[in-house]
Amino acid sequence: MKVKLQVDIKKLIERGDFRTLKLLLEDQDANVVFEMIEELETSEKAIVFRLLHKDIAAEVFSKLESDEQFELVRMLTDEEIKSIIRSMEPSDRAELLDELPADVVTKLLSFLPKNEREQTIEILNYPDNSAGRLMSPYFVYVTKDMTVEKALTKVRKFGKDADTIYTIFVIEEDRTLAGTLELEDLLFSESEVLVEEVYTPAPAYVKTTTDQEEVAELMKNYDLNAIAVVDNDLRLVGIITIDDIVDIIEEEATEDIHKMAGMNVTATSYFHTSPFVFVKNRLPWLFGLLLLQSLSALVVSRYENALALYPILAAFMATMVDAGGNAGGQSSTLIIRSLALGDIELKDWWKVFLREVYLGAIMGAVLGVTLFLRSFMITSNVSINFSAGVALFLIMIFSNAVGAMLPFVGKFFKIDPAVMSGPLVTTIADLAGMLIYFSIATLILGI
Amino acid sequence: MKVKLQVDIKKLIERGDFRTLKLLLEDQDANVVFEMIEELETSEKAIVFRLLHKDIAAEVFSKLESDEQFELVRMLTDEEIKSIIRSMEPSDRAELLDELPADVVTKLLSFLPKNEREQTIEILNYPDNSAGRLMSPYFVYVTKDMTVEKALTKVRKFGKDADTIYTIFVIEEDRTLAGTLELEDLLFSESEVLVEEVYTPAPAYVKTTTDQEEVAELMKNYDLNAIAVVDNDLRLVGIITIDDIVDIIEEEATEDIHKMAGMNVTATSYFHTSPFVFVKNRLPWLFGLLLLQSLSALVVSRYENALALYPILAAFMATMVDAGGNAGGQSSTLIIRSLALGDIELKDWWKVFLREVYLGAIMGAVLGVTLFLRSFMITSNVSINFSAGVALFLIMIFSNAVGAMLPFVGKFFKIDPAVMSGPLVTTIADLAGMLIYFSIATLILGI
Repeated sequence: MKVKLQVDIKKLIERGDFRTLKLLLEDQDANVVFEMIEELETSEKAIVFRLLHKDIAAEVFSKLESDEQFELVRMLTDEEIKSIIRSMEPSDRAELLDELPADVVTKLLSFLPKNEREQTIEILNYPDNSAGRLMSPYFVYVTKDMTVEKALTKVRKFGKDADTIYTIFVIEEDRTLAGTLELEDLLFSESEVLVEEVYTPAPAYVKTTTDQEEVAELMKNYDLNAIAVVDNDLRLVGIITIDDIVDIIEEEATEDIHKMAGMNVTATSYFHTSPFVFVKNRLPWLFGLLLLQSLSALVVSRYENALALYPILAAFMATMVDAGGNAGGQSSTLIIRSLALGDIELKDWWKVFLREVYLGAIMGAVLGVTLFLRSFMITSNVSINFSAGVALFLIMIFSNAVGAMLPFVGKFFKIDPAVMSGPLVTTIADLAGMLIYFSIATLILGI
Repeated sequence: MKVKLQVDIKKLIERGDFRTLKLLLEDQDANVVFEMIEELETSEKAIVFRLLHKDIAAEVFSKLESDEQFELVRMLTDEEIKSIIRSMEPSDRAELLDELPADVVTKLLSFLPKNEREQTIEILNYPDNSAGRLMSPYFVYVTKDMTVEKALTKVRKFGKDADTIYTIFVIEEDRTLAGTLELEDLLFSESEVLVEEVYTPAPAYVKTTTDQEEVAELMKNYDLNAIAVVDNDLRLVGIITIDDIVDIIEEEATEDIHKMAGMNVTATSYFHTSPFVFVKNRLPWLFGLLLLQSLSALVVSRYENALALYPILAAFMATMVDAGGNAGGQSSTLIIRSLALGDIELKDWWKVFLREVYLGAIMGAVLGVTLFLRSFMITSNVSINFSAGVALFLIMIFSNAVGAMLPFVGKFFKIDPAVMSGPLVTTIADLAGMLIYFSIATLILGI
């Protein structure tokens, strides 16, 4: 059904039948419109935007990727953009402006009425990924001395423009946060009861500067539908709702996954990101790791004599590097994710260390014996095969423990633990692996 | 504050001052109690459970990890467990029973009244991670011919036991789903208006067998607060609310992350998982990769003569393996995550392939030149250094493209793309790397 609608729209645009198109778009939900136009060319999208009601247009526009938003800003007339940008949510507007060149920003800001312009600039001043960037200024608030009836009247009156009416915020006279009220508390109470008697005092809240990851964590742990955002004087300035959090949890997971593969984070989606951004996010890591890896090459070059005597020793080198890297990658991944989810804390490092040494030894024993047996496929020299098995056993213990410890080191030095993973672990495991392997081999072979 | 409360509780338990403890626990939210007792011993937790109101006890109990739930089931008396299990949410109850040994399950089921027992068994019959497992049977429904006033009365009457009253479900006479109604639609309408005039027909819904990942995707895309779950005859049987989805999105991200590091998924948290589960989830992968890696060792052993002539060739082997593995790890990670988020689809494989060959060539050129220069640290043999540089260039293109293509292969064969990542890519890149490296080197050195 989805595809069918897209074909229809494309055809209608080609035929120039904008009347039918407008009829088709009327009364559609923004999510539906977004899906309908998702695979259209940007120029075709521009046509659709001209036909949409301004509120829907603003909502759909907010859902687009930033490169498309930028293209549309250039394609649409000033009047058209003005109407869209005026109807956008303040936080979406700030996100858009953050991505655009300075001259376009200045122009777009001039389209806004004075108070909205100031509000937008204020949001842009909050740090990236902070609660201030996310929050909405549209919420319903009441005071403790109101009756349930009066509070409900207020909800009915101001609720249409609010982001949520399911959580109502209770404030003191000086606008500091006093508590929250669920809409159901109002519905299930007698109308003459005072808010004071049914509200929840001292609720969880965040500051405008709180990181979005922390906001998500708090809302998840307390099953909150909306959370209050306060300024430094604890005055209520905005709210964040659960649907924002869903996006953030996915975003944060993506960030961690990218970092764990040794890349800088790419925030935009694959096809909306230019290849050069990927080069910029990936190459420095590969480059740094290549240089770090020099050390391991140096180690190997010191054993040139041993290799000249027993060239077959080289056949096991990649095995040592791979197995160590894989085990270290597993343990670092487990620990990074557990740290991110709060299952493990910094103070647990010693317990984790002991556990991972133990696990490394079990897995190392199995793999060491396997390699010893497997290696008869390659050479019948028992001493070489024995060295390989013992070296692998030790490398497994070492890599597994180092992989588990590096995220703690990161956390301790306030570096994102996700960076301390896969590729870095592989390279360290590689260096240590070569040292262990050649030390053991030369010892056993008596070179 | 959190730590202080924990100390207090521990002290109170040690002193046997259960009266103060009970007072302290009274009227606390389940989330707060859960945080307070999180770090207590299980036996201490058992004491706390005896003092809690049964509804709160059930809610806190649901939040515990399954190994602790099991221990508590053994520690508490039948009467105590009976009261907890009776007050639990049906889906939480099913989750608990799923983890327990069969004899305990039979006993616990016997504690439930007949209709709840049947309901629980029904939930247990739905596949793991399906909507049927997640859904709650507690929701408010109305029919189209009701007035807004009558609907609101129904919300007031049945809302207290419902999981949400913010979305109300509209059904036909035969209990099939007709549409949904937001609570605000009721609040903002005149009382004599009919539901028919204000409800949203044909809403998104899922079947009981739909996978939870799909449910999350749908709710996220349509910004839904709750979604209807229907049976095969499209009759409304339950609902899933947004707070369940938040947990699922995190769970699915964790699953992908674990798979991407070459592990089976560990669903329980680090310290609540026995070391043997980790061995079981990690070792088979390491073992399989070690065997797969034999091929690469065989390739190297075929070049024993070349290595005997130029043992220094071995110094670059780990570099080839590492760099190829890292680049392939990056590209596979990017593609896996983009596939998971729906940014890329199966049909895009060719576009992705061309892009990643291009990116691999750019990055390979930079790294190849770097390695060529760097290698003079190790040997002054220009031919060897040149071979290393050229081989790295080719390996980068190959690994980067293979890393990007493997997730598509997985998706095509209906294997989770996340499995097609890091360690597997590393091992394939390693095999190809050795082939490329030694072919180039023997060609250039004329061996």
